[in-house]
This record gives sequence, structure tokens and C-alpha cells, in this order.
Amino acid sequence: MDDRALVKAIRAIIGSDATDDDCAVIEDGENYLVMSTDMLHETTDFPKGITDYECGWMAAAVTLSDVASMGAAPIALLLAVGVDRAERVEEITRGADACCRAYGCRLMGGDMDAHSECTLVSSGLGRVSRDGLVRRRGAQPGDVVAITGIPGRAQAGLDGYPEYWKALITPRPGVFEGQALGRAGATAMMDVSDGLSISLHDLAEASGVRMDVDEAAIPRPGGVPAEDAARYALFGGGDFGLLFTCPEDVFPVAGVDATCIGRVAEGEGVYLDGEPLAKAGYAHYWE
Amino acid sequence: MDDRALVKAIRAIIGSDATDDDCAVIEDGENYLVMSTDMLHETTDFPKGITDYECGWMAAAVTLSDVASMGAAPIALLLAVGVDRAERVEEITRGADACCRAYGCRLMGGDMDAHSECTLVSSGLGRVSRDGLVRRRGAQPGDVVAITGIPGRAQAGLDGYPEYWKALITPRPGVFEGQALGRAGATAMMDVSDGLSISLHDLAEASGVRMDVDEAAIPRPGGVPAEDAARYALFGGGDFGLLFTCPEDVFPVAGVDATCIGRVAEGEGVYLDGEPLAKAGYAHYWE
Repeated sequence: MDDRALVKAIRAIIGSDATDDDCAVIEDGENYLVMSTDMLHETTDFPKGITDYECGWMAAAVTLSDVASMGAAPIALLLAVGVDRAERVEEITRGADACCRAYGCRLMGGDMDAHSECTLVSSGLGRVSRDGLVRRRGAQPGDVVAITGIPGRAQAGLDGYPEYWKALITPRPGVFEGQALGRAGATAMMDVSDGLSISLHDLAEASGVRMDVDEAAIPRPGGVPAEDAARYALFGGGDFGLLFTCPEDVFPVAGVDATCIGRVAEGEGVYLDGEPLAKAGYAHYWE
Repeated sequence: MDDRALVKAIRAIIGSDATDDDCAVIEDGENYLVMSTDMLHETTDFPKGITDYECGWMAAAVTLSDVASMGAAPIALLLAVGVDRAERVEEITRGADACCRAYGCRLMGGDMDAHSECTLVSSGLGRVSRDGLVRRRGAQPGDVVAITGIPGRAQAGLDGYPEYWKALITPRPGVFEGQALGRAGATAMMDVSDGLSISLHDLAEASGVRMDVDEAAIPRPGGVPAEDAARYALFGGGDFGLLFTCPEDVFPVAGVDATCIGRVAEGEGVYLDGEPLAKAGYAHYWE
């Protein structure tokens, strides 16, 4: 049973509109508020050799990325910290605070607890105008499919390419890109932190469309053997680029460094150069 | 080093106004948004014998109580769930969802992960009008000191009194009371989840005042030997009553079942029948 199977069970309890996107969406007068929470802990999320400061940065970044993927501006972040030694809390807080400041957000508190395994949960709040909100479900046939950044870099870092270590441990959420894309008219968006392939499937499924992707168009990390680079780009997790769709005449969006990798069509499924693309990527499996 | 010592180190990084209250406070037009996060896990928070459903309820309740203690209405809650077996997530979600519904809030999503120790982090968002917000720092000399509910019941449940087991495992946050007290003009407020004594100290310190408490006035759990009952009421944790101050002419507040236990005076410290009251209660200690 993986995350996505469980999500279906959870939807039956709390309703599907609350679990369809990277954030929950809450009415707030002329705006929407968006809210997200992410749990990271040592055995499943923190690569060996990461410092406490970097753990804090990473915890903030994953949640800022969720807020960004809705087209929203992050306004507040809270961090719950469970650690074995109290001394670690300070450096973790410094890292999370630095990440928040770098992206115009503010770390406004949290909780802490003695815990045998370092466990960080960041919860973020963002705000977006009614017409700037982007969900996963708006992709339309004819739209461009595009991504920001270079997918696969974090996986390359995890697999031992030192030039990508920083991409893995201090990922950069697309806070400015997400808002620009929302204002410009992106029709569907999410981050690719679970991997590009699985994110394409999620976006196509949520929108009820087919996506055709051109493998040669996908940017991939340099300095890595070609076969590995292609695999990292499609199936590696931990990158914080944004995957989005938008009408052709909207692309490219000023100030957003993005690459067109395909097209939205009527139908369902994701096709890579005409062949079905495996729905695989980073997922939390229970034994 | 305990929570409160660490808070001082954290304040130096993120600013003291972000850590003074049960929630972070965020400007939102004519209103304030309040936001809180709480980490609970097996070794420190969940009594033996508690069910998954009750764990979910408790996780939601602690955060709804934080929102309530600011005078705010809860509008959304997210739950991050780390568990050893995926099957547990469903019952935990049911419990959290039931607690949210009971208090006019909505469980809107979360995160989940495989974790060796059951770890739940709930994050809540609330909204309150500008004049309804209550912080810890507004108590004024001459104000009444009062509490809702009966402190010590949860501790009695933990110590084996079966009639208080439910008070311990399915605590009831003061969502309606908090809002009524905020509208009526409470000057300072917090919940007593860490224990009454330590909460009195926190409130007095945040407000820069002295509090004189009348021990005989403090309600305490029945069916428990007198000495234990008094100790539970002052130093037991896990209850979700609200401790608040308000001008004399405001008390009692219609619809709120509260007990006056003392007075605010100029100065500092907390005194029980004229003697200094120990600042002790439930705290997370690292070895």
C-alpha cells in the first residue's frame, strides 16, 4: 500500500476536494488561503551527511514548494521538531528560518519534542488572488506541458554525483515562478518532488486528459552518463521544479525559465514518444 | 534543557512576537489569522491502551485548543501521520475528522509516511476579528483570574481513575468558550494543557503582572483523595480548559462555565494563598 492508494481511503473520510492538490484551499474574501503540511524524518528523507541546518532548510523548502505550486505567496510557516538532543533544534531552526526569509516567508513558531528519530513537520500558509490560484485539475487539450528547472539533479546528488549534492539537500522552491505562472494563466500545476513521471500521471489524471511528452525535450542533469541522466530526469525524486500546463499563447512566461516538454490531448494516460510512460517515482511504501 | 529554555534560544532566531502565544498571529485585512502546530507521539504523549481513533482525536484536539485559546474560530486542520502500518492511518484520520466536525472545523488533508514510532502532527488555522483576538500578554491589575472546566481530570485518568480515562484520551477543546470570552473582553488567555501552575506562571510572565490564586476556589476532580486531587489540579497536564483574565464587570461571561480562582495584581510571580507557587507541570525534558 503506497501513499496514493491510501489517499483514496482518506478521501472517503474527508472528501476528495481536500486532497486533490498540493495544498488545501480555503476561501478568504477576495483571496484564497492555501495550506500544506509535510513530514520528513531521518530514515526516509534525510540523506546521510546532511547537517541540521540543511535538514531545517529542506523541511521549509518542501512546504514552500507546495504553496508555490498553487500559484500562492507564502506568508507563514510553522515547524514541529522532534529530535534526540535539544541542541539540534537551534541549527534546524536557523536553516528553516533562512529558507523562509530567502522566499519572502516568515517562520512564525512551531513545536518541539524529544524523539528518538529526527522528525520535522513543516506547515505553511499562503495567499493567492482568486484568478491566480492554480490547481492540478485545469489542464485543457491543446495546452503546452512544461517544467521549470532540470529534473533529476537531486537523484544524481543522492547517487553520488557531488556537483548535485546541494540540489539534493538545499532544494530551491519555485516561489516566484509559481506566482508568475498563476498570474499568466497556467491551467494546472504541481511540483515534481515525487518525480516527473509520477507527477505527469497525477496531473493528467486530475485534469482528465492525456499528455504526450517528447523525451528529447526533457532537460536532464549534465555530467552524468546518458542512460542514467534520462532515468533520473523521469523517475528521480527530490527536485522542486514546477510541472504546469498553459495555453500555447501564454508560453513562455516572462521571467520564468521553463521548458516545453509536451502537449495536452483528449483522452487519458501519459505517453513518452508515443509509448505509455510507467507511473513510477518516489513513493513511501509500507512493507 | 526543557521546552521553555529552548523557546528562548528560538526567539533569538525568529523573533519573540512569533513565539509568545499558543498560536502565530497573521494580519488578514479586517481579521487576524492564527496558526498552530503540535507534535504528539507514542513515547511521550499517547497513554497505553489508547486506540488509533482516539490518537487522531487527541491530535486534532490539542491544536483546536490552541486556536480556541486565541479567541479564534478554527477553519482548517491538516494532519501529518507517521505510522508503522498503513492500515492505522484510516482510523487515525476518522478520529481527527470527528473531532474537527464536532467543533465546526474541517480536516482538509495532510501528509503520511512510514515511521517506526506513531507520530502525529496537527496544524490548525483559525480566524478572529481584530477585537476578538486574545493573547497571553494583556492581563491587567484588578482583573479576575478564571478557568473553564476542572483541571486535573486528565492526570487522574492517567493515574488510573477509570472515570477520567475519557477526559484524558478524548479531550474537549474550548472552541466555543474561547470565542465567547474573546468577544466579551477577556484580556489574556491560554489553555492549561501543560498544567494549571505552569500556565499561571506563563500568563503572569507574558503580561508582566502578579497573580494571586485562592487554592480553595480551584475546582478539582471528585472521587480522588483530597491531596491527590489538589496536586492533579495544580500540576497535572492534559486538560484543555482555558485560563483567562478579564475585568471584574465582564465576569461571568454568558454561556461560559468558568470559575474565578484569583486576581491580577501589580508585580510579578504567582502566589497561592499568599505563598509562591512552584512553576512546575508537564514539560518535555531531554536527558
